[in-house]
Amino acid sequence: MSATPDPGPVSAHPTTSLDETVHQRHRLGILTITAEAESADFGYLRDALGLTPGNLSRHLTVLEEAGLVQVSKGFRGRRPRTWVRITRKGRTALAAEISALTALLRGHEPAGH
Amino acid sequence: MSATPDPGPVSAHPTTSLDETVHQRHRLGILTITAEAESADFGYLRDALGLTPGNLSRHLTVLEEAGLVQVSKGFRGRRPRTWVRITRKGRTALAAEISALTALLRGHEPAGH
Repeated sequence: MSATPDPGPVSAHPTTSLDETVHQRHRLGILTITAEAESADFGYLRDALGLTPGNLSRHLTVLEEAGLVQVSKGFRGRRPRTWVRITRKGRTALAAEISALTALLRGHEPAGH
Repeated sequence: MSATPDPGPVSAHPTTSLDETVHQRHRLGILTITAEAESADFGYLRDALGLTPGNLSRHLTVLEEAGLVQVSKGFRGRRPRTWVRITRKGRTALAAEISALTALLRGHEPAGH
């Protein structure tokens, strides 16, 4: 019965269901690359994402502590290698992020379309 | 001519073109809502995004300092109101984010599709 215009019901915006552990752009990059590949090499991730080794390590630690990736060390020939594999929990978390982004993009077509 | 498997050329991943000012989930929420509406009320944004007033204020300051939104204060009747309007630069930045997310989602359909 208010005389002021009603802006309509407020419902949860798609961004409220984004998880910052997954949404942070570099971690989103790590998860999408490892979801595509069987497992990804540390150096490959570093170059593809344009990160310093220290920065990549920090993001991997966040993801590993959240149970979203597994990091293992080994050798290829004599060269030490670090491999990153997405976990089942990581795939589930990435799927949730992608669903939320898809909902967000619905109705927000890129300019020119 | 190397005997080790070549992981293929490393090209820039879509997440490398995401701008953290825009990509942060609450700021992405503010920009998408204000891009849809002519302008959005502070209280509406707070409720739609599930933010505390202090948290919303901090994100608005980041966006305003980057020139992506304009915040103005006024009255509706006797009640003080704060309105948020996206700028032209904000629309351009949001379009760039949406293009990068669209590129990222291409080939990452939600599970079940």
